Amino acid sequence: MAGFDDLASERSKAQFDVEEMKVIWAGSRHTLEVSDRISRLVANDPVFRKDTRTMLSRKDLFKNTLRKAAHAWKRIIELRLSEEEAAELRFYVDEPAFMDLHWGMFIPTIKGQGTEEQQQKWLPLAYKMKIIGCYAQTELGHGSNVQGLETTATFDPQTDEFIIHSPTLTSSKWWPGGLGKVSTHAVVYGRLIIDSKDYGVNGFIVQLRSLDDHLPLPGITIGDIGMKFGSGAYNTMDNGVLRFDHVRIPRDQMLMRVSQVTREGKLVQSNVPWQLVYGTMVYVRQKIVSDASCALSRAVCIATRYSAVRRQFGLQSNGIETQVIDYKTQQSRLFPLLASAYAFRFVGEWLKWLYMDVNQRLQASDFSTLPEAHACTAGLKSLTTSATADGIEECRKLCGGHGYLCSSGLPELFAVYIPACTYEGDNIVLLLQVARFLIKTVSQLGSGKEPVGTTVYMGRVEQLMQCHCAVQKGFLELSADLVQAAVAHCQLIVVSKFIEKLQQDIPGKGVKGQLEALCNIYALFILHKHLGDFLSTGCITPKQASLANAQLRSLYSQVRPNAIALVDAFNYTDHYLSSVLGRYDGNVYPKLYEEAWKDPLNDSVVPDGYQEYIQPILKQQLRNARL
Amino acid sequence: MAGFDDLASERSKAQFDVEEMKVIWAGSRHTLEVSDRISRLVANDPVFRKDTRTMLSRKDLFKNTLRKAAHAWKRIIELRLSEEEAAELRFYVDEPAFMDLHWGMFIPTIKGQGTEEQQQKWLPLAYKMKIIGCYAQTELGHGSNVQGLETTATFDPQTDEFIIHSPTLTSSKWWPGGLGKVSTHAVVYGRLIIDSKDYGVNGFIVQLRSLDDHLPLPGITIGDIGMKFGSGAYNTMDNGVLRFDHVRIPRDQMLMRVSQVTREGKLVQSNVPWQLVYGTMVYVRQKIVSDASCALSRAVCIATRYSAVRRQFGLQSNGIETQVIDYKTQQSRLFPLLASAYAFRFVGEWLKWLYMDVNQRLQASDFSTLPEAHACTAGLKSLTTSATADGIEECRKLCGGHGYLCSSGLPELFAVYIPACTYEGDNIVLLLQVARFLIKTVSQLGSGKEPVGTTVYMGRVEQLMQCHCAVQKGFLELSADLVQAAVAHCQLIVVSKFIEKLQQDIPGKGVKGQLEALCNIYALFILHKHLGDFLSTGCITPKQASLANAQLRSLYSQVRPNAIALVDAFNYTDHYLSSVLGRYDGNVYPKLYEEAWKDPLNDSVVPDGYQEYIQPILKQQLRNARL
Repeated sequence: MAGFDDLASERSKAQFDVEEMKVIWAGSRHTLEVSDRISRLVANDPVFRKDTRTMLSRKDLFKNTLRKAAHAWKRIIELRLSEEEAAELRFYVDEPAFMDLHWGMFIPTIKGQGTEEQQQKWLPLAYKMKIIGCYAQTELGHGSNVQGLETTATFDPQTDEFIIHSPTLTSSKWWPGGLGKVSTHAVVYGRLIIDSKDYGVNGFIVQLRSLDDHLPLPGITIGDIGMKFGSGAYNTMDNGVLRFDHVRIPRDQMLMRVSQVTREGKLVQSNVPWQLVYGTMVYVRQKIVSDASCALSRAVCIATRYSAVRRQFGLQSNGIETQVIDYKTQQSRLFPLLASAYAFRFVGEWLKWLYMDVNQRLQASDFSTLPEAHACTAGLKSLTTSATADGIEECRKLCGGHGYLCSSGLPELFAVYIPACTYEGDNIVLLLQVARFLIKTVSQLGSGKEPVGTTVYMGRVEQLMQCHCAVQKGFLELSADLVQAAVAHCQLIVVSKFIEKLQQDIPGKGVKGQLEALCNIYALFILHKHLGDFLSTGCITPKQASLANAQLRSLYSQVRPNAIALVDAFNYTDHYLSSVLGRYDGNVYPKLYEEAWKDPLNDSVVPDGYQEYIQPILKQQLRNARL
Repeated sequence: MAGFDDLASERSKAQFDVEEMKVIWAGSRHTLEVSDRISRLVANDPVFRKDTRTMLSRKDLFKNTLRKAAHAWKRIIELRLSEEEAAELRFYVDEPAFMDLHWGMFIPTIKGQGTEEQQQKWLPLAYKMKIIGCYAQTELGHGSNVQGLETTATFDPQTDEFIIHSPTLTSSKWWPGGLGKVSTHAVVYGRLIIDSKDYGVNGFIVQLRSLDDHLPLPGITIGDIGMKFGSGAYNTMDNGVLRFDHVRIPRDQMLMRVSQVTREGKLVQSNVPWQLVYGTMVYVRQKIVSDASCALSRAVCIATRYSAVRRQFGLQSNGIETQVIDYKTQQSRLFPLLASAYAFRFVGEWLKWLYMDVNQRLQASDFSTLPEAHACTAGLKSLTTSATADGIEECRKLCGGHGYLCSSGLPELFAVYIPACTYEGDNIVLLLQVARFLIKTVSQLGSGKEPVGTTVYMGRVEQLMQCHCAVQKGFLELSADLVQAAVAHCQLIVVSKFIEKLQQDIPGKGVKGQLEALCNIYALFILHKHLGDFLSTGCITPKQASLANAQLRSLYSQVRPNAIALVDAFNYTDHYLSSVLGRYDGNVYPKLYEEAWKDPLNDSVVPDGYQEYIQPILKQQLRNARL
């Protein structure tokens, strides 16, 4: 039962330099140093404790989040943290809050869609948090279909104002984080109406609450949309509902970088290319991919450590049972997730580069790679978030019954993570976009328009044509199959970028070897998972499939002695993991036992309600009981 | 946006007799009448309301559950409900509670493992609930490996007692439902020790709490193990921790139906076959399979109705958008789950028959079908609960963003359901048992021992031998692959039983035709899902795979107009569904809006914490703020 010894002995078995792997995972020595320092700073600050989160009522939970957010901002100011350090601090506080939307959506949107003057007016206020902003796009009736939004912004030439209005119940803004209780301002998306003509959806800066007493301004109804999945989890966020009753804002609060409404009520396009908005989208999505690798690696770290501590069946000669990590069924579920965490890390790193590349090209008015970059980020966002959501739940299952306890950290991690599959583009809708792009790319082959970036492989026309592809039905009819094709395309990108990473110079004893094993596991696991596609297209033979499976098994054995060290390389503090099962020291059982007693139900030995509801049953006095 | 009209128009499109389908789903006219009457009785009783469950603190939630349990018991007595009706009532109250373990585990265990005298002594007390019992088997360190339990029950010949003791921290009983705060008694499993010799694990009836003041008896430490996955969900249950410090019980409280300890401390076997315990196991697991079909159909009902109400993209000629149920991507995910719900329903029905059959044979000391029946129930428990857990989450995703709200009912349904994958046998461990049984069956082929029941197909030796099977490695080495083989075997049972159902007389216009379509969808979907296995073994050709896929698409179109009627046939009340998205009347959006305002955060317009934590940020007064 000595979890301590188990993990120490596991660590001594590692065949590679863990410290060097930490650098690889972090991206650079500098990033490792910053994240290490900031994560410890957060872990050691009692205000940032997370251990009672799942036991709090909604109100107490929310108030505690406000406290943490204020404290975080205070520390950022006091310690004069750099932008990078401040972002790391918010990340390690690890609690969804209005701050995320203020820094992650409100400010970037003004930067991306506001004119120079608008930026000069609003950004200094936002940077100092003299105003707090959110991003009010989705409505009760419209999520994915942004062009279907119903909120209206009607230009009134008499007063030089826009009238923001919610004409129907379904036009109520619904979901925006930070809206429900905190934000003073929002970027609101609505249909621009001039002289009864509908010019489609545009963004507007709207003040929601008084800066004096925080009350909603006249004509504005706001509230929280209620409890979401899980205890703790995303309930720290005030996702909100918002209705406008003819609320007036000055004309200059329409975001006018790309198109402007003049004093006379004319809509004119600026000379700024509209494609610039894609820059923001690529930025946000690469961030989501990077977050996916964090969430998945966190779950994998917990499940891997606990699998080395937990023993069950298979009494060994020394009288103790077998570590569950030694079971092949456990390895065949856990190690592909370990490999996925690394794979997503590296593809996320590459997306960062892609974002910079796209931005540079945009500055130079080169839009040639934009569709490909857009499809790429959309597809990778979809693939990595879906795999991460499923992977977290799989890690929970790999922890057996105890994974169901909140103290394992996994239920909350799952509940807090899964919105990533929906926000910033529903994962299926995104894959359909990728599919459309792929079909377009294929249809343009031979037309002289060369495929670029991640679609270069499609240029090998002859090969593609050899495949027995006889698409005669329409896109919609075949959409379920096309979604699978889009996934395959994205998996190719993930594998390619992992391989490219391995072609770089990777120092440190044994580090490259471990990464090669993980890369091969990822690729072979994907092959195994989609075996039907590979076999039915004749890409591989049954014999090859069987060899690949054997190779996969052998790679699991190769990774096994390094598993604990490979999750240690994520360099996560126990605070960040917030899991009794994933503790660095492996001291699982005493701490599980200790945690149990903290539940409010254990405040008294005899439970509240005994006299009214249990005693009358036992004493057969229920007939007269008032329930 | 008129959800009302959408569902009414859907219902008018149905091509079969919904009322007759309700009978098929329920199993008989009688069962339908009972479940219909009782579910309405529960739905109309304000004490049984569920709508605030996810907002309550643990203590309030638990107290409310005690109230419901007492009220349910009171109603059962007042209305003189039959055993069948009482079970239905508990089912529709739909809240995990100590009652489940008392009726579902404590009583059946005494019936199955107690002697005649023990049954006469304990059962009348239990039936009247003069005592409340639970089932204390699993420990902190041992779940799946029952034979590894550490709790000891040492016979003391001096006093004719057993001394129940927890020798280590990891021997603490951990997880038993109803233990933490309510049960007065438990069946406790521990190692029988006589004269320092370990005779393995046996069951003992142990009183835990005083019947006077509900305090734990001397030497007994009990508590709740803390918050579990989700808000509401399983947190209504007092899963408990229990430690014994040399607690003495009379000798006659060992469950002695199969083996007895005499006054002299001799262990003697009775003439009752030990295999009888398998009867209980088969019973409990067939119940779990039947529950799986309920949980999955509930999720499918919600997702199907909402998919008909929700419209997104694809503006039609009449100016309204396309119902999302009309998208092929939605159908290809939703309809296989609809088919699975029906498939699990029928295989569950068949398991009920199997349980009766096994029991009759046991009475006649015929153990020949027992291993097969055991493997069968183990495998089907694993398959249906895993598919149901995944299916519920898939239904949630099919509801888009709104599925993440607790008011959709799906987060809580998921959180409350998933323990079924772990309790009564971890799903992977169970599949390994099935795999072992299959290997044994294959190895006995030709030895004169004919395969029985669901393994009869293996008798076709010649065919099997044609498959290129060259198993040379050990069981453990190949266990991951063997688990897949076990799943395939179980899927064969599910499909076979669905087909057998269709060979029965099925009255009602169009009912049989709909079930045939669903059966085909289930079978073809499984083929699609495991395509790699079918292709690599040469069972089907790529051409056939492509035809099967086309056939599947065409079946989806066939089911589409009947989808709403097919979920109406489950006959679920809005109370049971407890989902705004799944409302029978389709009036989704106004009700979502209405629900939101009930959240405690909306009690005040300005949130608690504004003055301490938000204002200081906005006013730039954080430096001096005390946080």
